[in-house]
Amino acid sequence: VAFDVGAVDQVTLQLSEGVESAELIILATPIRTFPQLLPTVTAAARQDAVLTEVASTKARVIETVTAHLADRPDLAYVPSHPMAGSEQRGAAHARADMFEDSVCILTPLRETPPEELNRVRSLWQRLGASVHEMTPAGHDRLVARISHLPHLAAAALMRCLSAREGHFAGGGLLDTTRIASGDPRLWRDICETNSEEIGSAISCCAEALQEMRAMLEEGRFEALEELLADAKRKRDSLLARRD
Amino acid sequence: VAFDVGAVDQVTLQLSEGVESAELIILATPIRTFPQLLPTVTAAARQDAVLTEVASTKARVIETVTAHLADRPDLAYVPSHPMAGSEQRGAAHARADMFEDSVCILTPLRETPPEELNRVRSLWQRLGASVHEMTPAGHDRLVARISHLPHLAAAALMRCLSAREGHFAGGGLLDTTRIASGDPRLWRDICETNSEEIGSAISCCAEALQEMRAMLEEGRFEALEELLADAKRKRDSLLARRD
Repeated sequence: VAFDVGAVDQVTLQLSEGVESAELIILATPIRTFPQLLPTVTAAARQDAVLTEVASTKARVIETVTAHLADRPDLAYVPSHPMAGSEQRGAAHARADMFEDSVCILTPLRETPPEELNRVRSLWQRLGASVHEMTPAGHDRLVARISHLPHLAAAALMRCLSAREGHFAGGGLLDTTRIASGDPRLWRDICETNSEEIGSAISCCAEALQEMRAMLEEGRFEALEELLADAKRKRDSLLARRD
Repeated sequence: VAFDVGAVDQVTLQLSEGVESAELIILATPIRTFPQLLPTVTAAARQDAVLTEVASTKARVIETVTAHLADRPDLAYVPSHPMAGSEQRGAAHARADMFEDSVCILTPLRETPPEELNRVRSLWQRLGASVHEMTPAGHDRLVARISHLPHLAAAALMRCLSAREGHFAGGGLLDTTRIASGDPRLWRDICETNSEEIGSAISCCAEALQEMRAMLEEGRFEALEELLADAKRKRDSLLARRD
Protein backbone atom coordinates (compact mmCIF):
# COMPACT_ATOMS: atom_id res chain seq x y z
CA VAL A 1 0.00 0.00 0.00
CA ALA A 2 2.75 2.44 0.94
CA PHE A 3 4.26 2.15 -2.58
CA ASP A 4 0.85 2.43 -4.22
CA VAL A 5 0.03 5.74 -2.59
CA GLY A 6 3.54 7.08 -3.20
CA ALA A 7 4.32 7.31 0.49
CA VAL A 8 7.77 5.69 0.09
CA ASP A 9 10.45 5.23 -2.61
CA GLN A 10 12.50 2.58 -0.93
CA VAL A 11 11.95 0.23 1.98
CA THR A 12 13.93 -2.21 4.06
CA LEU A 13 13.04 -4.44 6.96
CA GLN A 14 16.65 -4.19 8.17
CA LEU A 15 16.75 -1.25 10.54
CA SER A 16 20.53 -0.88 10.31
CA GLU A 17 20.36 -0.83 6.49
CA GLY A 18 17.72 1.90 6.58
CA VAL A 19 19.70 4.00 9.00
CA GLU A 20 23.32 3.65 7.88
CA SER A 21 23.30 6.10 4.96
CA ALA A 22 20.70 8.53 6.33
CA GLU A 23 21.59 12.15 7.09
CA LEU A 24 18.33 12.50 8.99
CA ILE A 25 16.76 9.64 10.93
CA ILE A 26 13.09 10.00 11.87
CA LEU A 27 11.95 7.53 14.47
CA ALA A 28 8.17 7.33 13.92
CA THR A 29 7.24 4.12 15.71
CA PRO A 30 5.25 3.68 18.95
CA ILE A 31 7.05 5.02 22.02
CA ARG A 32 7.26 1.56 23.60
CA THR A 33 9.46 0.31 20.74
CA PHE A 34 12.15 2.96 21.27
CA PRO A 35 14.21 0.95 23.80
CA GLN A 36 14.42 -2.00 21.37
CA LEU A 37 15.17 0.07 18.27
CA LEU A 38 17.63 2.63 19.63
CA PRO A 39 20.63 0.31 20.18
CA THR A 40 20.51 -0.68 16.49
CA VAL A 41 19.97 2.91 15.38
CA THR A 42 22.91 4.29 17.35
CA ALA A 43 25.15 1.41 16.23
CA ALA A 44 24.37 1.90 12.53
CA ALA A 45 23.95 5.70 12.24
CA ARG A 46 26.59 7.41 10.15
CA GLN A 47 28.89 10.09 11.54
CA ASP A 48 27.10 13.39 12.27
CA ALA A 49 23.61 12.17 11.42
CA VAL A 50 20.64 13.99 13.00
CA LEU A 51 18.06 11.94 14.86
CA THR A 52 14.52 13.05 15.51
CA GLU A 53 11.36 11.29 16.65
CA VAL A 54 7.70 12.25 16.52
CA ALA A 55 6.39 11.01 19.86
CA SER A 56 3.36 12.78 21.36
CA THR A 57 5.02 13.20 24.75
CA LYS A 58 8.48 14.57 25.35
CA ALA A 59 10.11 14.64 28.80
CA ARG A 60 10.12 10.86 29.41
CA VAL A 61 10.89 10.07 25.76
CA ILE A 62 13.90 12.40 25.82
CA GLU A 63 15.25 10.60 28.90
CA THR A 64 15.02 7.29 27.06
CA VAL A 65 16.60 8.54 23.85
CA THR A 66 19.46 10.48 25.45
CA ALA A 67 20.34 7.45 27.61
CA HIS A 68 20.86 5.45 24.42
CA LEU A 69 22.87 8.22 22.79
CA ALA A 70 25.46 8.33 25.60
CA ASP A 71 28.19 6.66 23.48
CA ARG A 72 27.36 8.55 20.26
CA PRO A 73 27.95 12.21 21.17
CA ASP A 74 28.43 13.00 17.46
CA LEU A 75 24.74 12.35 16.75
CA ALA A 76 22.46 15.36 17.21
CA TYR A 77 19.04 14.62 18.65
CA VAL A 78 16.16 17.04 18.07
CA PRO A 79 12.84 15.96 19.63
CA SER A 80 9.84 16.86 17.43
CA HIS A 81 6.12 16.66 17.85
CA PRO A 82 4.33 17.29 14.55
CA MET A 83 0.68 17.75 15.50
CA ALA A 84 -1.16 16.45 12.46
CA GLY A 85 -2.89 13.33 11.25
CA SER A 86 -6.13 11.72 12.28
CA GLU A 87 -7.40 8.86 14.39
CA GLN A 88 -6.64 6.55 11.43
CA ARG A 89 -3.49 4.52 10.89
CA GLY A 90 -1.42 3.04 8.11
CA ALA A 91 -0.07 4.03 4.70
CA ALA A 92 -3.56 3.83 3.18
CA HIS A 93 -4.36 7.05 5.07
CA ALA A 94 -1.17 8.84 3.98
CA ARG A 95 -1.69 12.37 2.61
CA ALA A 96 0.92 14.52 0.93
CA ASP A 97 -0.56 17.65 2.53
CA MET A 98 -0.89 16.18 6.02
CA PHE A 99 1.41 18.77 7.62
CA GLU A 100 0.13 21.80 5.74
CA ASP A 101 -1.08 24.47 8.18
CA SER A 102 -0.25 22.18 11.06
CA VAL A 103 1.78 23.01 14.14
CA CYS A 104 5.05 21.25 14.97
CA ILE A 105 6.64 21.67 18.38
CA LEU A 106 10.39 21.18 18.91
CA THR A 107 11.77 20.71 22.41
CA PRO A 108 15.50 21.12 21.71
CA LEU A 109 18.24 20.01 24.09
CA ARG A 110 20.50 22.73 25.41
CA GLU A 111 23.59 21.19 23.78
CA THR A 112 22.20 20.94 20.24
CA PRO A 113 24.10 23.16 17.75
CA PRO A 114 21.86 25.68 15.93
CA GLU A 115 22.63 24.23 12.50
CA GLU A 116 21.42 20.75 13.49
CA LEU A 117 18.32 22.25 15.03
CA ASN A 118 17.74 24.12 11.79
CA ARG A 119 17.86 20.95 9.71
CA VAL A 120 14.96 19.50 11.67
CA ARG A 121 13.11 22.81 11.83
CA SER A 122 13.29 23.28 8.08
CA LEU A 123 12.12 19.71 7.45
CA TRP A 124 8.80 20.51 9.14
CA GLN A 125 8.60 23.98 7.71
CA ARG A 126 9.06 22.69 4.18
CA LEU A 127 6.18 20.28 4.81
CA GLY A 128 4.02 23.30 5.62
CA ALA A 129 4.08 23.23 9.40
CA SER A 130 4.46 26.23 11.66
CA VAL A 131 7.32 25.36 14.04
CA HIS A 132 7.41 26.40 17.71
CA GLU A 133 10.00 25.70 20.38
CA MET A 134 9.33 25.02 24.05
CA THR A 135 10.68 23.04 26.98
CA PRO A 136 9.78 19.34 27.26
CA ALA A 137 7.82 20.03 30.46
CA GLY A 138 5.95 22.93 28.85
CA HIS A 139 5.16 20.74 25.86
CA ASP A 140 3.85 17.89 28.01
CA ARG A 141 1.62 20.20 30.01
CA LEU A 142 0.26 21.79 26.83
CA VAL A 143 -0.57 18.54 25.03
CA ALA A 144 -2.14 17.09 28.19
CA ARG A 145 -4.73 19.88 27.90
CA ILE A 146 -5.22 20.27 24.17
CA SER A 147 -4.96 16.62 23.16
CA HIS A 148 -4.73 13.98 25.90
CA LEU A 149 -7.53 15.28 28.12
CA PRO A 150 -9.96 15.66 25.16
CA HIS A 151 -9.20 12.05 24.24
CA LEU A 152 -9.95 10.74 27.73
CA ALA A 153 -13.04 12.96 28.01
CA ALA A 154 -14.33 11.48 24.75
CA ALA A 155 -13.74 8.00 26.19
CA ALA A 156 -15.61 9.02 29.37
CA LEU A 157 -18.59 10.18 27.29
CA MET A 158 -18.68 6.85 25.48
CA ARG A 159 -18.50 5.05 28.83
CA CYS A 160 -21.69 6.80 29.98
CA LEU A 161 -23.63 5.69 26.92
CA SER A 162 -25.43 2.39 26.46
CA ALA A 163 -25.47 0.75 23.02
CA ARG A 164 -29.19 1.48 22.73
CA GLU A 165 -28.64 5.15 23.54
CA GLY A 166 -25.81 5.31 21.01
CA HIS A 167 -28.33 4.47 18.31
CA PHE A 168 -29.71 8.00 18.63
CA ALA A 169 -26.34 9.74 18.50
CA GLY A 170 -26.24 12.80 16.27
CA GLY A 171 -23.45 14.79 14.66
CA GLY A 172 -22.65 16.56 17.93
CA LEU A 173 -21.80 13.37 19.79
CA LEU A 174 -19.98 11.88 16.81
CA ASP A 175 -17.72 14.92 16.54
CA THR A 176 -17.16 15.15 20.27
CA THR A 177 -16.10 11.51 20.46
CA ARG A 178 -14.27 11.18 17.11
CA ILE A 179 -10.89 10.96 18.80
CA ALA A 180 -12.16 8.10 21.01
CA SER A 181 -11.71 5.95 17.89
CA GLY A 182 -7.94 6.35 18.16
CA ASP A 183 -5.64 3.36 18.72
CA PRO A 184 -5.86 2.31 22.41
CA ARG A 185 -2.28 0.94 22.46
CA LEU A 186 -0.90 4.25 21.20
CA TRP A 187 -2.96 6.12 23.78
CA ARG A 188 -1.75 3.85 26.52
CA ASP A 189 1.83 4.80 25.61
CA ILE A 190 0.90 8.46 25.71
CA CYS A 191 -0.77 8.07 29.11
CA GLU A 192 2.18 6.12 30.49
CA THR A 193 4.69 8.75 29.46
CA ASN A 194 2.65 11.80 30.50
CA SER A 195 0.65 10.51 33.45
CA GLU A 196 1.24 13.43 35.82
CA GLU A 197 0.20 16.21 33.48
CA ILE A 198 -2.75 14.19 32.23
CA GLY A 199 -3.81 13.50 35.81
CA SER A 200 -3.83 17.19 36.61
CA ALA A 201 -5.73 18.02 33.40
CA ILE A 202 -8.32 15.36 34.31
CA SER A 203 -8.75 16.97 37.74
CA CYS A 204 -9.36 20.34 36.12
CA CYS A 205 -12.03 18.89 33.83
CA ALA A 206 -13.73 16.84 36.54
CA GLU A 207 -13.83 19.93 38.76
CA ALA A 208 -15.36 22.03 36.00
CA LEU A 209 -18.04 19.36 35.52
CA GLN A 210 -18.79 19.19 39.24
CA GLU A 211 -19.02 22.97 39.31
CA MET A 212 -21.68 22.84 36.59
CA ARG A 213 -23.47 20.08 38.45
CA ALA A 214 -23.60 22.22 41.58
CA MET A 215 -25.01 25.10 39.53
CA LEU A 216 -27.75 22.80 38.20
CA GLU A 217 -28.60 21.48 41.66
CA GLU A 218 -28.67 24.90 43.25
CA GLY A 219 -30.60 26.48 40.42
CA ARG A 220 -27.78 28.93 39.59
CA PHE A 221 -28.65 29.05 35.90
CA GLU A 222 -27.42 32.59 35.39
CA ALA A 223 -23.94 31.49 36.48
CA LEU A 224 -24.15 28.42 34.26
CA GLU A 225 -25.08 30.54 31.26
CA GLU A 226 -22.09 32.80 31.96
CA LEU A 227 -19.80 29.76 32.14
CA LEU A 228 -21.15 28.47 28.81
CA ALA A 229 -20.77 31.91 27.24
CA ASP A 230 -17.15 31.98 28.41
CA ALA A 231 -16.52 28.57 26.82
CA LYS A 232 -18.16 29.72 23.60
CA ARG A 233 -16.01 32.87 23.44
CA LYS A 234 -12.85 30.79 23.91
CA ARG A 235 -13.94 28.20 21.35
CA ASP A 236 -14.90 30.87 18.81
CA SER A 237 -11.53 32.56 19.28
CA LEU A 238 -9.72 29.28 18.46
CA LEU A 239 -11.54 29.24 15.14
CA ALA A 240 -10.93 32.92 14.46
CA ARG A 241 -7.20 32.41 14.91
CA ARG A 242 -7.17 29.63 12.32
CA ASP A 243 -9.03 31.55 9.59
CA VAL B 1 -32.60 36.56 4.67
CA ALA B 2 -35.29 33.93 5.23
CA PHE B 3 -36.98 34.92 1.93
CA ASP B 4 -33.66 35.03 0.08
CA VAL B 5 -32.76 31.46 0.99
CA GLY B 6 -36.31 30.23 0.30
CA ALA B 7 -36.88 29.27 3.91
CA VAL B 8 -40.34 30.91 4.02
CA ASP B 9 -43.15 31.89 1.64
CA GLN B 10 -45.11 34.14 3.93
CA VAL B 11 -44.36 35.83 7.23
CA THR B 12 -46.21 37.81 9.85
CA LEU B 13 -45.17 39.41 13.09
CA GLN B 14 -48.71 38.91 14.42
CA LEU B 15 -48.67 35.56 16.15
CA SER B 16 -52.47 35.21 16.07
CA GLU B 17 -52.51 35.92 12.32
CA GLY B 18 -49.89 33.24 11.71
CA VAL B 19 -51.73 30.69 13.77
CA GLU B 20 -55.40 31.26 12.95
CA SER B 21 -55.57 29.43 9.60
CA ALA B 22 -52.90 26.79 10.31
CA GLU B 23 -53.78 23.09 10.36
CA LEU B 24 -50.45 22.37 11.97
CA ILE B 25 -48.74 24.79 14.35
CA ILE B 26 -45.02 24.27 15.01
CA LEU B 27 -43.72 26.19 17.98
CA ALA B 28 -39.99 26.52 17.27
CA THR B 29 -38.93 29.32 19.60
CA PRO B 30 -36.76 29.13 22.74
CA ILE B 31 -38.37 27.19 25.58
CA ARG B 32 -38.46 30.25 27.83
CA THR B 33 -40.83 32.04 25.42
CA PHE B 34 -43.49 29.32 25.56
CA PRO B 35 -45.39 30.76 28.56
CA GLN B 36 -45.73 34.14 26.77
CA LEU B 37 -46.68 32.72 23.37
CA LEU B 38 -49.05 29.92 24.33
CA PRO B 39 -52.01 32.07 25.50
CA THR B 40 -52.10 33.76 22.07
CA VAL B 41 -51.64 30.47 20.24
CA THR B 42 -54.46 28.72 22.07
CA ALA B 43 -56.75 31.76 21.68
CA ALA B 44 -56.18 32.01 17.92
CA ALA B 45 -55.81 28.36 16.84
CA ARG B 46 -58.59 27.09 14.59
CA GLN B 47 -60.80 24.18 15.56
CA ASP B 48 -58.98 20.79 15.49
CA ALA B 49 -55.54 22.17 14.73
CA VAL B 50 -52.53 20.11 15.74
CA LEU B 51 -49.83 21.74 17.83
CA THR B 52 -46.25 20.55 18.05
CA GLU B 53 -43.04 22.07 19.33
CA VAL B 54 -39.39 21.19 18.81
CA ALA B 55 -37.88 21.74 22.25
CA SER B 56 -34.77 19.73 23.19
CA THR B 57 -36.24 18.63 26.52
CA LYS B 58 -39.66 17.17 27.02
CA ALA B 59 -41.09 16.39 30.50
CA ARG B 60 -41.04 19.97 31.83
CA VAL B 61 -42.01 21.46 28.47
CA ILE B 62 -45.03 19.14 28.23
CA GLU B 63 -46.17 20.29 31.68
CA THR B 64 -46.04 23.91 30.53
CA VAL B 65 -47.83 23.30 27.23
CA THR B 66 -50.59 21.06 28.58
CA ALA B 67 -51.33 23.57 31.34
CA HIS B 68 -52.02 26.17 28.64
CA LEU B 69 -54.14 23.77 26.61
CA ALA B 70 -56.55 23.08 29.48
CA ASP B 71 -59.37 25.13 27.90
CA ARG B 72 -58.76 23.92 24.31
CA PRO B 73 -59.32 20.14 24.51
CA ASP B 74 -60.02 20.11 20.73
CA LEU B 75 -56.36 20.93 19.97
CA ALA B 76 -54.10 17.89 19.71
CA TYR B 77 -50.58 18.36 21.07
CA VAL B 78 -47.77 16.12 19.86
CA PRO B 79 -44.35 16.89 21.41
CA SER B 80 -41.50 16.47 18.91
CA HIS B 81 -37.75 16.60 19.13
CA PRO B 82 -36.17 16.67 15.70
CA MET B 83 -32.46 16.06 16.33
CA ALA B 84 -30.80 17.96 13.52
CA GLY B 85 -29.12 21.26 12.85
CA SER B 86 -25.83 22.66 13.99
CA GLU B 87 -24.42 25.05 16.54
CA GLN B 88 -25.34 27.89 14.16
CA ARG B 89 -28.49 29.98 14.22
CA GLY B 90 -30.72 31.95 11.91
CA ALA B 91 -32.26 31.66 8.45
CA ALA B 92 -28.86 32.19 6.80
CA HIS B 93 -27.96 28.67 7.96
CA ALA B 94 -31.22 27.10 6.71
CA ARG B 95 -30.80 23.92 4.65
CA ALA B 96 -33.52 22.10 2.73
CA ASP B 97 -31.95 18.74 3.58
CA MET B 98 -31.42 19.50 7.28
CA PHE B 99 -33.64 16.62 8.45
CA GLU B 100 -32.50 14.02 5.93
CA ASP B 101 -31.15 10.94 7.72
CA SER B 102 -31.80 12.60 11.05
CA VAL B 103 -33.68 11.15 14.00
CA CYS B 104 -36.89 12.69 15.35
CA ILE B 105 -38.28 11.60 18.71
CA LEU B 106 -41.97 11.95 19.52
CA THR B 107 -43.15 11.69 23.13
CA PRO B 108 -46.92 11.41 22.56
CA LEU B 109 -49.51 12.01 25.27
CA ARG B 110 -51.71 9.04 26.11
CA GLU B 111 -54.87 10.87 25.03
CA THR B 112 -53.68 11.83 21.54
CA PRO B 113 -55.74 10.14 18.78
CA PRO B 114 -53.59 8.05 16.36
CA GLU B 115 -54.56 10.15 13.32
CA GLU B 116 -53.29 13.37 14.93
CA LEU B 117 -50.13 11.61 15.95
CA ASN B 118 -49.73 10.43 12.38
CA ARG B 119 -49.97 13.95 10.99
CA VAL B 120 -46.95 15.00 13.02
CA ARG B 121 -45.10 11.74 12.42
CA SER B 122 -45.50 12.02 8.66
CA LEU B 123 -44.35 15.65 8.70
CA TRP B 124 -40.96 14.57 10.01
CA GLN B 125 -40.83 11.43 7.90
CA ARG B 126 -41.49 13.41 4.72
CA LEU B 127 -38.57 15.67 5.65
CA GLY B 128 -36.38 12.56 5.73
CA ALA B 129 -36.21 11.86 9.46
CA SER B 130 -36.51 8.47 11.10
CA VAL B 131 -39.21 8.83 13.75
CA HIS B 132 -39.11 7.08 17.16
CA GLU B 133 -41.53 7.22 20.05
CA MET B 134 -40.64 7.15 23.73
CA THR B 135 -41.80 8.52 27.07
CA PRO B 136 -40.87 12.10 28.02
CA ALA B 137 -38.73 10.79 30.90
CA GLY B 138 -36.97 8.27 28.63
CA HIS B 139 -36.33 11.04 26.11
CA ASP B 140 -34.90 13.40 28.70
CA ARG B 141 -32.57 10.75 30.06
CA LEU B 142 -31.40 9.84 26.56
CA VAL B 143 -30.67 13.38 25.39
CA ALA B 144 -28.90 14.18 28.69
CA ARG B 145 -26.35 11.53 27.70
CA ILE B 146 -26.09 11.90 23.94
CA SER B 147 -26.40 15.66 23.69
CA HIS B 148 -26.44 17.70 26.91
CA LEU B 149 -23.51 16.02 28.66
CA PRO B 150 -21.27 16.24 25.55
CA HIS B 151 -22.05 19.95 25.41
CA LEU B 152 -21.10 20.55 29.04
CA ALA B 153 -18.00 18.35 28.68
CA ALA B 154 -16.91 20.44 25.71
CA ALA B 155 -17.38 23.56 27.85
CA ALA B 156 -15.34 21.94 30.65
CA LEU B 157 -12.50 21.25 28.20
CA MET B 158 -12.49 24.87 27.09
CA ARG B 159 -12.47 25.96 30.75
CA CYS B 160 -9.22 24.03 31.32
CA LEU B 161 -7.46 25.74 28.44
CA SER B 162 -5.66 29.08 28.52
CA ALA B 163 -5.82 31.37 25.48
CA ARG B 164 -2.12 30.72 24.86
CA GLU B 165 -2.66 26.97 24.94
CA GLY B 166 -5.62 27.30 22.59
CA HIS B 167 -3.25 28.69 19.99
CA PHE B 168 -1.89 25.16 19.51
CA ALA B 169 -5.27 23.46 19.23
CA GLY B 170 -5.52 20.89 16.45
CA GLY B 171 -8.42 19.25 14.66
CA GLY B 172 -9.04 16.87 17.55
CA LEU B 173 -9.75 19.63 20.05
CA LEU B 174 -11.73 21.66 17.55
CA ASP B 175 -14.02 18.72 16.81
CA THR B 176 -14.37 17.76 20.44
CA THR B 177 -15.38 21.29 21.40
CA ARG B 178 -17.39 22.27 18.31
CA ILE B 179 -20.67 22.12 20.21
CA ALA B 180 -19.26 24.47 22.87
CA SER B 181 -19.88 27.21 20.27
CA GLY B 182 -23.64 26.75 20.68
CA ASP B 183 -25.89 29.54 21.95
CA PRO B 184 -25.44 29.86 25.76
CA ARG B 185 -29.00 31.15 26.27
CA LEU B 186 -30.47 28.14 24.46
CA TRP B 187 -28.28 25.82 26.49
CA ARG B 188 -29.31 27.49 29.70
CA ASP B 189 -32.94 26.72 28.83
CA ILE B 190 -32.02 23.11 28.15
CA CYS B 191 -30.16 22.83 31.46
CA GLU B 192 -33.01 24.46 33.37
CA THR B 193 -35.59 22.06 31.97
CA ASN B 194 -33.52 18.87 32.28
CA SER B 195 -31.33 19.57 35.30
CA GLU B 196 -31.78 16.24 37.08
CA GLU B 197 -30.91 13.99 34.17
CA ILE B 198 -28.02 16.24 33.17
CA GLY B 199 -26.76 16.20 36.76
CA SER B 200 -26.71 12.42 36.80
CA ALA B 201 -25.00 12.26 33.38
CA ILE B 202 -22.35 14.70 34.67
CA SER B 203 -21.73 12.45 37.66
CA CYS B 204 -21.23 9.46 35.39
CA CYS B 205 -18.70 11.36 33.27
CA ALA B 206 -16.82 12.84 36.22
CA GLU B 207 -16.61 9.36 37.79
CA ALA B 208 -15.26 7.87 34.57
CA LEU B 209 -12.61 10.60 34.47
CA GLN B 210 -11.63 10.03 38.11
CA GLU B 211 -11.43 6.31 37.43
CA MET B 212 -8.92 7.00 34.62
CA ARG B 213 -7.02 9.34 36.88
CA ALA B 214 -6.71 6.61 39.51
CA MET B 215 -5.44 4.21 36.85
CA LEU B 216 -2.78 6.74 35.85
CA GLU B 217 -1.72 7.36 39.45
CA GLU B 218 -1.57 3.70 40.33
CA GLY B 219 0.19 2.72 37.11
CA ARG B 220 -2.68 0.44 35.98
CA PHE B 221 -2.04 1.07 32.30
CA GLU B 222 -3.33 -2.31 31.18
CA ALA B 223 -6.74 -1.47 32.66
CA LEU B 224 -6.63 2.00 31.09
CA GLU B 225 -5.90 0.52 27.68
CA GLU B 226 -8.87 -1.84 28.10
CA LEU B 227 -11.12 1.09 29.01
CA LEU B 228 -9.95 3.02 25.94
CA ALA B 229 -10.44 -0.05 23.74
CA ASP B 230 -14.00 -0.36 25.07
CA ALA B 231 -14.70 3.28 24.24
CA LYS B 232 -13.25 2.81 20.76
CA ARG B 233 -15.44 -0.24 20.10
CA LYS B 234 -18.54 1.68 21.16
CA ARG B 235 -17.59 4.71 19.11
CA ASP B 236 -16.80 2.62 16.03
CA SER B 237 -20.16 0.86 16.35
CA LEU B 238 -21.97 4.24 16.30
CA LEU B 239 -20.34 4.96 12.97
CA ALA B 240 -21.02 1.48 11.58
CA ARG B 241 -24.72 1.87 12.35
CA ARG B 242 -24.87 5.09 10.36
CA ASP B 243 -23.17 3.80 7.22
